[in-house]
Amino acid sequence: MKVIIIGAVAAGSKAAAKLSRLRPDWDINIYTEDAHVAYSECGMPFYLAGNFSDYKKLFVRTPSEFEEKGIRVFLQNKIIKILPETKEVLVKNLVKEKEYTTNYDKLIIATGAVPFIPEIKNVNCRNVFALRTIESCIAIKKQMVQSNHVTIIGSGYIAVELLEAFIRQGLLITLLNKHKNLMNFFDPDISKIIQKHILKKNLREINLLSKNTAIEFVGDGYVNSVKTQTGIEFPTDMVVIATGIRPNVKMAVDSGIELGSTGAIKVNKRMETNIPDIYACGDCVEKFHIVANAPVWIPLGSTANKEGRCAAINVAGDYEEFNGVLGSAVTRYFNFTMSMTGLTEKDAFKYGFEPVSVLVAKSDKSGFMPEAENITIKLIADKKTKRLLGAQAVGIGDADKRVNTLTSALLSNMTIEDFFRNDMTYAPPFSTSIDPVLIAAQELINKLNKS
Amino acid sequence: MKVIIIGAVAAGSKAAAKLSRLRPDWDINIYTEDAHVAYSECGMPFYLAGNFSDYKKLFVRTPSEFEEKGIRVFLQNKIIKILPETKEVLVKNLVKEKEYTTNYDKLIIATGAVPFIPEIKNVNCRNVFALRTIESCIAIKKQMVQSNHVTIIGSGYIAVELLEAFIRQGLLITLLNKHKNLMNFFDPDISKIIQKHILKKNLREINLLSKNTAIEFVGDGYVNSVKTQTGIEFPTDMVVIATGIRPNVKMAVDSGIELGSTGAIKVNKRMETNIPDIYACGDCVEKFHIVANAPVWIPLGSTANKEGRCAAINVAGDYEEFNGVLGSAVTRYFNFTMSMTGLTEKDAFKYGFEPVSVLVAKSDKSGFMPEAENITIKLIADKKTKRLLGAQAVGIGDADKRVNTLTSALLSNMTIEDFFRNDMTYAPPFSTSIDPVLIAAQELINKLNKS
Repeated sequence: MKVIIIGAVAAGSKAAAKLSRLRPDWDINIYTEDAHVAYSECGMPFYLAGNFSDYKKLFVRTPSEFEEKGIRVFLQNKIIKILPETKEVLVKNLVKEKEYTTNYDKLIIATGAVPFIPEIKNVNCRNVFALRTIESCIAIKKQMVQSNHVTIIGSGYIAVELLEAFIRQGLLITLLNKHKNLMNFFDPDISKIIQKHILKKNLREINLLSKNTAIEFVGDGYVNSVKTQTGIEFPTDMVVIATGIRPNVKMAVDSGIELGSTGAIKVNKRMETNIPDIYACGDCVEKFHIVANAPVWIPLGSTANKEGRCAAINVAGDYEEFNGVLGSAVTRYFNFTMSMTGLTEKDAFKYGFEPVSVLVAKSDKSGFMPEAENITIKLIADKKTKRLLGAQAVGIGDADKRVNTLTSALLSNMTIEDFFRNDMTYAPPFSTSIDPVLIAAQELINKLNKS
Repeated sequence: MKVIIIGAVAAGSKAAAKLSRLRPDWDINIYTEDAHVAYSECGMPFYLAGNFSDYKKLFVRTPSEFEEKGIRVFLQNKIIKILPETKEVLVKNLVKEKEYTTNYDKLIIATGAVPFIPEIKNVNCRNVFALRTIESCIAIKKQMVQSNHVTIIGSGYIAVELLEAFIRQGLLITLLNKHKNLMNFFDPDISKIIQKHILKKNLREINLLSKNTAIEFVGDGYVNSVKTQTGIEFPTDMVVIATGIRPNVKMAVDSGIELGSTGAIKVNKRMETNIPDIYACGDCVEKFHIVANAPVWIPLGSTANKEGRCAAINVAGDYEEFNGVLGSAVTRYFNFTMSMTGLTEKDAFKYGFEPVSVLVAKSDKSGFMPEAENITIKLIADKKTKRLLGAQAVGIGDADKRVNTLTSALLSNMTIEDFFRNDMTYAPPFSTSIDPVLIAAQELINKLNKS
């Protein structure tokens, strides 16, 4: 059996590794337009922040490690089109600039996502970047060390992670955010807390231009200043665009692969596309949201890994389902954690729930412990059913732990009253005697019973 | 309505505070033989370790804070007996050495637990201590600062917390452990890891005598040396006995209150004892173990708080149930965390399950992050039903977080396969792309499917 895997970052490389363990005698081939395989995209901002100095640490596996397992790796070989009728792919060797075809028995699409680049005049200047591949990461690093001022366009996870990275490198930053608050994925009450914290911590380094978008990069092939739609113009040494990503599905669409309503590739629980023997996984596919009971596109490394594993098992002829996501995500800004799971309140409305929420600020550990810090927890439940819908937690304290206590509860459709029966670990260096998330649960129960 | 609450550490003080919020006009009275109320017993080892220098930080509420809310506090007034027929209590004022009676309409027993003191010759020497009350904590501190060598008898949570405290104070310690390994509550494979870590870290400071028990304290009212049953004798400046605690139920038994099979007071889910209008909560009562489906006695501050709250609501005439415990617990030895929830493998056998387990050692964060540390996770499920039974996690890394991801799963009777569908938060500073606890779950599924 000959298997072709298109793409080899998180989902593709996981699928290849898993499949070669399950079927060591199969002919497994990785094709990627990239010059590298199996690296941690999520780790790149942390490399730029100086957490470690060798970018090679980002590689989970090298091409030669794949080759040792009998997996053939075709770097800089871009799949132009899949030809399902003849079970072939049309490939372009990007180095030799030559096209050729090769056959497959089964195929896995793991083409990931590509940065969304807004329409800005002179967007193709050579000191304008978007962080996605290892090459882009190295290029940003190179430009960063010779810059004093950097412009970040965007305000999500990557933008905030890059903000920390550039501050750690001693740069001054202008951040253009088209929204009102940073980290706009969170509910406004939480994103306000995040923004307040970030500005308080680094007021000197950050010039935050909210509700501003770039309209022009001024310069001749090299940006010297940025113009915004509100008439502001400011000088800069480099620009990083972090305005989100889109599923990389052009080749799939060209090949007749069906997309879902979110614009990502539609797959069933076995990661099968609409075309027999063609599977897809990772950031290029649509996901099913377990709480929303609806398709979503939440591209995350954790999900990509699980989907890659699931695809490999089914390609091997065994049976496995991937049941969907809860929307769990986390990042940090220096020591400030931002974490969520399930639906936000705004999304809960969108999916037809009647969300009721509480916002609770508490010490994460017993007050007498010197390491105790504040966290703010938002808990959301449905008014009618009292079903738990989601949680958000932020703070210098241990916020992520609290969010992760909810994931099993969301999976099993717990009501907030069920969840309140929880018995969490307690010792003064780890929590308060009644954990902050249970205090939040109690307040939410009271609020639901009153309303 | 006149309510008498007997005892005012965790459960009693929580019950008093909650009841006064629910029924501010009621006559609420706290009686305690102690000279203090509402302090964190769990915090005392961390005070002794020097995490904070003022023991008054351990007080959650002061007597005057209670009085301000109209709650009367009778310090050093010991309840000798309850007289249910006349709805009176016989009280002894320990300062005036006088006995008197007073009436009640409803009564809450929250007498907690007392240290178990093994039979040892000269056990009543004045430099022999057991940590339980604030007074005992202050006395240990006083003796500690003038000692060079301390003997700890015991090997559980308190013993290990005190071990850290004494090492931080520059003392040398001999620890007598009647068991083979420290932290014997955990399964042997985990307690071995704990012991290895502790001895590796502080080999110079600790003389560990396993399978040894003290038989005599040598000295005239003041211990100068300790003799063990194996013939060892060693000099010491003080002894702390930490061989566990027992429910403090003598007064309750004398008053006709029924005990459960564990020797603690039997209560229903509303915290009612066998006698009308008499409730009990906290360390003196038996608990229901949700996974074992059996009565247990696991005395913990977190549970005591919840039971105190539940008792208060029912005493107030409202309705509340406390559904039981999962056995979740945590502590640390310096930066090494030891955490568990649900049943250990040995207990699972005891309760009639057929446990299958895996032990997985993994990095708690992405390997390229400098703060990544190892943790060891043990996951246990039942062979027949695949129901998740419990977890233990230890390590310098973030072990406690992983244990707390399981509590909701245990509450809702999840199978290990259900749990594996979990979507936990991921970013390089917080976990690996597939969380270690999910990797453990996957290994356990594989093991169950093979067996």
